[in-house]
Amino acid sequence: MTQPTSSQAYQELLFAGLPDFEPGSVWLVGAGPGDRGLMTLHAVNAMRQADVIIYDALIDEADLAFAKPDVVTEYAGKRGGRPSSNQQDITLRLIELAREGKRVLRLKGGDPFIFGRGGEEALALSEAKVPFRIVPGITAGIGGLSYAGIPATYREINQSVTFLTGHDRTGSVPSALDWDAVAKGSQVIVMYMAMKHLSSITQKLLDGGRRPEEGAAIVCNATTTNQQVLVATLGTIAEKTKAANLQPPALVVIGDVVHLRERLDWYTAMALPQE
Amino acid sequence: MTQPTSSQAYQELLFAGLPDFEPGSVWLVGAGPGDRGLMTLHAVNAMRQADVIIYDALIDEADLAFAKPDVVTEYAGKRGGRPSSNQQDITLRLIELAREGKRVLRLKGGDPFIFGRGGEEALALSEAKVPFRIVPGITAGIGGLSYAGIPATYREINQSVTFLTGHDRTGSVPSALDWDAVAKGSQVIVMYMAMKHLSSITQKLLDGGRRPEEGAAIVCNATTTNQQVLVATLGTIAEKTKAANLQPPALVVIGDVVHLRERLDWYTAMALPQE
Repeated sequence: MTQPTSSQAYQELLFAGLPDFEPGSVWLVGAGPGDRGLMTLHAVNAMRQADVIIYDALIDEADLAFAKPDVVTEYAGKRGGRPSSNQQDITLRLIELAREGKRVLRLKGGDPFIFGRGGEEALALSEAKVPFRIVPGITAGIGGLSYAGIPATYREINQSVTFLTGHDRTGSVPSALDWDAVAKGSQVIVMYMAMKHLSSITQKLLDGGRRPEEGAAIVCNATTTNQQVLVATLGTIAEKTKAANLQPPALVVIGDVVHLRERLDWYTAMALPQE
Repeated sequence: MTQPTSSQAYQELLFAGLPDFEPGSVWLVGAGPGDRGLMTLHAVNAMRQADVIIYDALIDEADLAFAKPDVVTEYAGKRGGRPSSNQQDITLRLIELAREGKRVLRLKGGDPFIFGRGGEEALALSEAKVPFRIVPGITAGIGGLSYAGIPATYREINQSVTFLTGHDRTGSVPSALDWDAVAKGSQVIVMYMAMKHLSSITQKLLDGGRRPEEGAAIVCNATTTNQQVLVATLGTIAEKTKAANLQPPALVVIGDVVHLRERLDWYTAMALPQE
């Protein structure tokens, strides 16, 4: 086994074999759910070489510190107080910068291909014949739940887990979903962007035969120091979320894996003073 | 923005704020699907501090190079030619080592909470009052598909994606799943460990009303240099997999997102000589 002999050698080892960021190409990179430690080596390797970083609202700007000193950063978030860019503008900008010969890093929260519009961006790059690379990231539906002490799967409870988005392109509850079949077939359901329509969605699941006393939880600002977790039941989660005035970004999980949090809440335990 | 001024400073920046690995504790760490670059900073931070690493079959031993020189490594894989450890033995070993005051790293492929038995291990640690931390990893069902140029979600195609395991604790096709409802409610289905029962599972989906011409693909050794991708349809994937004599580990994906691979296969494109 090769052993690092110095800090310099260790750093070389860290990035050994990782790809060169070719000028004129775009890397679509998932930064994970928020905790900087959940960024991948590929993500760091992308940042240290990028000429331009176009980043989303969910990115913590402090994480851009991994970039080189003369990097240019552009905000392309879709929420918050700053003016938002539309998807078309972002895509055209990526292509424009690549054609100028830049190493273009498109940095997104979570994973680019889990409700992240990465598919659309990649398709546009492909059509424009701009070389691109996809760097997966930890998605909040898995990593965020882990930080709440909730395993997305647990062998005695579920052999499947369904991730779904709480609104479709029109902003409504996704009408293409067969909610009755989701209620019957999805043992554990993890929902992204579901806060707005939570009451309507939980009602659909109840109508489909889910038990009102089934476990449910909402995790806000998952994996960050501002993480908030509220545990309820399928029957009460919408009302409790409203009463607690919780704000997005948030994940909602429905299923009896939620009960494991009572014994697996390592994140809160780690924050307590050690004995 | 803080800028690194030297290799030393950059390395300090990389690990700044990441947790100390307390003696007597266990970290359950997901190493991702195979490509070393998909390991997180937390995973590397765990390796550089661990006294003992207990690792699974899917871990590339070369990746243990991030560990300190005097680390002790123990193989606990469940497949391949070496004797396998059972889950009970692994759990007891983790507790024993922690009680000896070691920093114990349990390194698993993928994500510990996605069909990875991490829940069982964490619960045993909790019951033994051994402090533990969960470090999520990139799961193959997302990252592996990305390397095959297949987005797990694409807004025009699906608002949900279901991950399921192809066998339950008895080794059979999971009987707790309502396959008819899965067929109707799960727009895209990603299956782990589904090779053995693939013919039976695809028949259940067809019986539930899925179209035989629907896109399907199998990805073997995802994200590694040995990655193999076979594209077929729901009606033909089982037969073609058998004919090609493909071997696990493999992922199977059912859904029309598979067709995007024609335009999004960046991994093959990157391997080609640049113009």
